[in-house]
Amino acid sequence: MPDGELADVFDGVDAEVPDGLAEHLRTVRLIDHHVHGTFDKPVDRAGFEASINEGSTDPIPDFMTQFDSPLGLSIRRWCAPVLGLPAHADADEYWKRRSEFTPDELASLMLPPARVERWVVDTGFQGDLITTPERLTELSGSPSSSILRLERLAEDLLESGTAPEDFPDAFRTALQGAAAAPDTVGTKTIAAYRTGFVIDWSRPDDAQVIEHARTLAARPSQRVDSPVLIAFGVHEAAAHGLPIQVHVGFGDRDLDLHRTDPMLLLPLLRTMTPVPVLLLHCYPFHRQSGYLAQAFDHVNFDVGLGINYLGVRSTGLVAEAMETAPFAKQLFSSDAFGPPELHLLGSVLWRRAMGLVLGRWIRSGDCSEADAIRIVDMIGVHNATRVYSL
Amino acid sequence: MPDGELADVFDGVDAEVPDGLAEHLRTVRLIDHHVHGTFDKPVDRAGFEASINEGSTDPIPDFMTQFDSPLGLSIRRWCAPVLGLPAHADADEYWKRRSEFTPDELASLMLPPARVERWVVDTGFQGDLITTPERLTELSGSPSSSILRLERLAEDLLESGTAPEDFPDAFRTALQGAAAAPDTVGTKTIAAYRTGFVIDWSRPDDAQVIEHARTLAARPSQRVDSPVLIAFGVHEAAAHGLPIQVHVGFGDRDLDLHRTDPMLLLPLLRTMTPVPVLLLHCYPFHRQSGYLAQAFDHVNFDVGLGINYLGVRSTGLVAEAMETAPFAKQLFSSDAFGPPELHLLGSVLWRRAMGLVLGRWIRSGDCSEADAIRIVDMIGVHNATRVYSL
Amino acid sequence: MPDGELADVFDGVDAEVPDGLAEHLRTVRLIDHHVHGTFDKPVDRAGFEASINEGSTDPIPDFMTQFDSPLGLSIRRWCAPVLGLPAHADADEYWKRRSEFTPDELASLMLPPARVERWVVDTGFQGDLITTPERLTELSGSPSSSILRLERLAEDLLESGTAPEDFPDAFRTALQGAAAAPDTVGTKTIAAYRTGFVIDWSRPDDAQVIEHARTLAARPSQRVDSPVLIAFGVHEAAAHGLPIQVHVGFGDRDLDLHRTDPMLLLPLLRTMTPVPVLLLHCYPFHRQSGYLAQAFDHVNFDVGLGINYLGVRSTGLVAEAMETAPFAKQLFSSDAFGPPELHLLGSVLWRRAMGLVLGRWIRSGDCSEADAIRIVDMIGVHNATRVYSL
Repeated sequence: MPDGELADVFDGVDAEVPDGLAEHLRTVRLIDHHVHGTFDKPVDRAGFEASINEGSTDPIPDFMTQFDSPLGLSIRRWCAPVLGLPAHADADEYWKRRSEFTPDELASLMLPPARVERWVVDTGFQGDLITTPERLTELSGSPSSSILRLERLAEDLLESGTAPEDFPDAFRTALQGAAAAPDTVGTKTIAAYRTGFVIDWSRPDDAQVIEHARTLAARPSQRVDSPVLIAFGVHEAAAHGLPIQVHVGFGDRDLDLHRTDPMLLLPLLRTMTPVPVLLLHCYPFHRQSGYLAQAFDHVNFDVGLGINYLGVRSTGLVAEAMETAPFAKQLFSSDAFGPPELHLLGSVLWRRAMGLVLGRWIRSGDCSEADAIRIVDMIGVHNATRVYSL
Repeated sequence: MPDGELADVFDGVDAEVPDGLAEHLRTVRLIDHHVHGTFDKPVDRAGFEASINEGSTDPIPDFMTQFDSPLGLSIRRWCAPVLGLPAHADADEYWKRRSEFTPDELASLMLPPARVERWVVDTGFQGDLITTPERLTELSGSPSSSILRLERLAEDLLESGTAPEDFPDAFRTALQGAAAAPDTVGTKTIAAYRTGFVIDWSRPDDAQVIEHARTLAARPSQRVDSPVLIAFGVHEAAAHGLPIQVHVGFGDRDLDLHRTDPMLLLPLLRTMTPVPVLLLHCYPFHRQSGYLAQAFDHVNFDVGLGINYLGVRSTGLVAEAMETAPFAKQLFSSDAFGPPELHLLGSVLWRRAMGLVLGRWIRSGDCSEADAIRIVDMIGVHNATRVYSL
Repeated sequence: MPDGELADVFDGVDAEVPDGLAEHLRTVRLIDHHVHGTFDKPVDRAGFEASINEGSTDPIPDFMTQFDSPLGLSIRRWCAPVLGLPAHADADEYWKRRSEFTPDELASLMLPPARVERWVVDTGFQGDLITTPERLTELSGSPSSSILRLERLAEDLLESGTAPEDFPDAFRTALQGAAAAPDTVGTKTIAAYRTGFVIDWSRPDDAQVIEHARTLAARPSQRVDSPVLIAFGVHEAAAHGLPIQVHVGFGDRDLDLHRTDPMLLLPLLRTMTPVPVLLLHCYPFHRQSGYLAQAFDHVNFDVGLGINYLGVRSTGLVAEAMETAPFAKQLFSSDAFGPPELHLLGSVLWRRAMGLVLGRWIRSGDCSEADAIRIVDMIGVHNATRVYSL
């Protein structure tokens, strides 16, 4: 293990962040309300580079390295010192050094300095490649809660042979179990990937659901791409009082980004049982999400994922996320998946951006330092505690 | 009445704004080209908090206060001293102090320091709750002009028993009267709320209008939601040479925000009689509106409402509003409705943002101070004078 | 000829740009990968003002001058000294002085200080008004390459009497010639102007193409507005291995801006032969384009045109263009057309903006100076060299 450590998050900008705010942002333990596990097997360089490109589903081409991106710059700046290298060590040096560590060693180096009090883990994607919530807890020293993917639940039921006519009740029973289990604190829909948001969001009756389940059961794959089954899942989760995370915006190219504008969720938001809705990521529709968080008591949002991918530019994103939404309606997340660098950077870049944005507000007299610290606590901790009843 | 007063608008940032520009922005009297009255009855705290949330149509929930928002911070920063409190007085203190004043006292404290030369008042929404233009003038000491809402006019005619076959001529007669009256300087359409912008914008003939008026007259409510009647109103206003304000973007959740992208107005803008069109608010489509203001001689826009709701972040909005539009095509507005805090902040935040944006341009040598002052005068005063023939 | 010269590009902001980066940005010779010729006949003031308004197709109205815009301020700031006037000379002075020069003299004054190593010239629009690539090279001292407009090629073939049944082969033969000619380095589609992006992007067969060519040949004008012919052109260019520039976003009002959101190209990007695609301009959809440049190995983009039109605000645009795209996927362009001021400003404003954006990254420790210089070289030179095999 290296004797390296994380630099101060306000290194290079400390004159811009008043001391009290800076000290609070350095030390506050965050709730990362949307995150995945870390890689639990070694990856080769191609695999690593692919894992720091969210949009592409192809290998990184020969003519470039994905390190030459805002995220790549941030990894070299913040994570190289954690591995005992100088800041800005080049891509090859970074890769060489990183290869000397096991996945567990990397996680043990990167996770604790993220100072995350609790991970709220989405286990529904490529669970075979990444650590379980339990293992994430062991590696980081912080407890985890879980999020249940609604489409994955439907697929599990159908793949395991649930008869279509039993599907609605089986789904409800599973949700009831989840709602009762202390570790499952919410649900998630990836309608963005399966149908986009321009669907009929009205609540289907069981007969419709059974019919769609039957169609799906008869196919070779039970991948849920039926708007009826997706709307069913969302309304059932709401009926069981479970918070619902919704993938919005930024994702890989299988998704039609323009069909994930959160405004297209209006027909759902206006009519659903008002359990907490968490609009995830949202970039480049974060202004629209902020507006929805003002317009609906039950709507909340974050700008995770974008914070990591924008690197130094995340300061602008964090600023734009503090426009129309009440401060009680925004949450912190990293949406890290795979390299533990992402779990660390999600925290570091958010702290730094909040310090720069709120620091400016304080210095210009537009906000008191006490209010700035309250805003940090709301977005970083308290809103998640409230929304998920943690 | 308190001995409080408004702080200097460049308090905390005076080093960033060159003296000549700062002095001009402190003193220039603005034309607020889109504003409503102030509350003329006391509101309780719930009502006040609801009136500083534009998007929601529900009460503010228990778990938060709407003061914890960018607008709330700005109220506490700028308006608390006007009431004799220290800047950043907390929400409860602010509310307690505010409750000691009558609506007229509040208006008399907040309106004059807005330094508005003329209010151009939209009287078409909840006129029973707010002051008339005449009363606004008495309370502020500044004259008012009026804007005629086209949908309201149609509804008034139908509700008062105008026969559908007489409706087109009655509407034209009313417009002729408005065009001749010195106090009515323009019209407004809220197509955004009634149909969205994806409608057939071609000019309907009277037979079509009569048919739609007949359908509406037969309903229990005469709320105009017919695209034909809306297009009729707009084309008639244009035919009478009246400027037309168009609600664009930011509003409450009854509106489908994505159907109010101003680009969707292209079929209208390309074919209409080219009277001045005023795209109002526009957030988060202000870049699109700036583009339209470049592309069409008769198109103008503002970023009112957003300036208040973004609070300290309005500097970024004002900067983005000065991208592609000629400076002769942008106007100042507050879109204040209800609490006179909003009438004051619309002015204060705009002055401050313009000082910061143009101040930076001057300091970097990108704009002369004389030009910056001319730009302030165009956007703050002269463009409204020209557009409305004031 | 005046003894004026271009001011230092970091004039007024030199404290914000570290010396090594500044010196590199002052001297690096750029590849302007999307540009047109300069006016080769004198224009009157009305013509000049129209040529610095991209969106409008009408004359500039009486009540304003197009100089009162961000672009106008930049012309007065940067180009006035080149003509021997003080910076910020007013519009009338600037026009008077400018009128003393011939078009060639103006080009000879403005083009060399742009420090462009190679112009990649789109010759497909109003070629009778502007210089050829050869003449641009004579006036600037820098070599030129050419871009072939696909719709123009189709129109040339049909207008010159190519029989519809011969059209597909004739088009392919012409592309083969272009691919073999050393000066033609790519193609361009203006689908944005002809159909928008919501068309069937699948590759048509020859029978379909012949049918659409027949329909077009029978019309008085052969203006290509057939989605089939446009998709045919794009797929044929890709089949011949030619890079394809795509007009995206910002343009004149004949275009439905909202139908040129680059996300609407997803059906094409996902299925086409992956030759380099160059998304041009992109404003106000530059964040979407950056995302596509991350998501697809063959997609690249620029923010040309917007840089000129945003003037001093182009710093914000350049910053937003460096969010999610890898640095290997962005290119520099001016998209200048007509006044050689635009060729110069495209370069000056980009250098200055890159200096301010990357300078801040360096000063805050988020990027090393060496990396910043590499990023400049990638976007300014190397990516174009790679994409067009220059």
